[in-house]
Amino acid sequence: MTTPVLYLGDLTVGQTFESRSHTLDAAQIKAFAAQFDPQFFHLDEEAAKDSLFAGLAASGWHVAAVTMRLMVECSPIAGGLIGASAEIAWPRPTRPGDTLRVVCEVAEITPSRSRPERGMVLMRSTTFNQSNDIAQTMSSRMVVPRRTVPAPETAT
Amino acid sequence: MTTPVLYLGDLTVGQTFESRSHTLDAAQIKAFAAQFDPQFFHLDEEAAKDSLFAGLAASGWHVAAVTMRLMVECSPIAGGLIGASAEIAWPRPTRPGDTLRVVCEVAEITPSRSRPERGMVLMRSTTFNQSNDIAQTMSSRMVVPRRTVPAPETAT
Repeated sequence: MTTPVLYLGDLTVGQTFESRSHTLDAAQIKAFAAQFDPQFFHLDEEAAKDSLFAGLAASGWHVAAVTMRLMVECSPIAGGLIGASAEIAWPRPTRPGDTLRVVCEVAEITPSRSRPERGMVLMRSTTFNQSNDIAQTMSSRMVVPRRTVPAPETAT
Repeated sequence: MTTPVLYLGDLTVGQTFESRSHTLDAAQIKAFAAQFDPQFFHLDEEAAKDSLFAGLAASGWHVAAVTMRLMVECSPIAGGLIGASAEIAWPRPTRPGDTLRVVCEVAEITPSRSRPERGMVLMRSTTFNQSNDIAQTMSSRMVVPRRTVPAPETAT
């Protein structure tokens, strides 16, 4: 790892992480949909023209999964990215050929009262397409460990 | 299709849809994680023992994707399941061998003021495992079309 691993105390509100970009093509869109969201507007260009999307669109869960991939790569949180809950919205469809990238911002840091070894971080992630239009917004509550300090030796 | 297709006016608050079940094995958990959530606690049984999950666990986005698959199969909504946003939580890890099933309930029905041809439905979905413990809760706002009535012919 070339990036430092960040514990709860290393994070600051407003801190951001930016991902690389990933292009979703029609083959990826259809492969995900066939397995997890087999609806005609995610599977068939022609049939999709008669849907609310008026053309082939990626499953929102596919956009979420790609977003997670990009977040994992760019967010050097100690212990990994472990979400307890999330609010997610897709303001527009993601189309074949769209190139997605993610910007994550630390929005809140809440040390746990009952568990001194960890805390919760609210991370706001925005997934942009190549036109800088927003493909997805997400607020995730994540469990982040505190750096453990070796306990001092005590005489018995 | 053997089930009727339901438009906005066919839905009632409290109506439920129940899915079949699907078992997630370690191979599925690792394959999803390798593509979308490549973190050690989703990929390696031995290494996962030292994580917050204390053992291999499915990515939450994998649980969400399987939930979507099961919902698509059991919710005969006209035009398909098209989510605008969702709130999602994972109260416990999903483990290799867990068998998931989903119960969806129509929680709110809101005809659109600006778009008479559609409305929004709030669907609450609960993903249970084989012990009837809750693996995931989700509230999704979905776009649902109204049944179109042929316009009466008007004399010109």
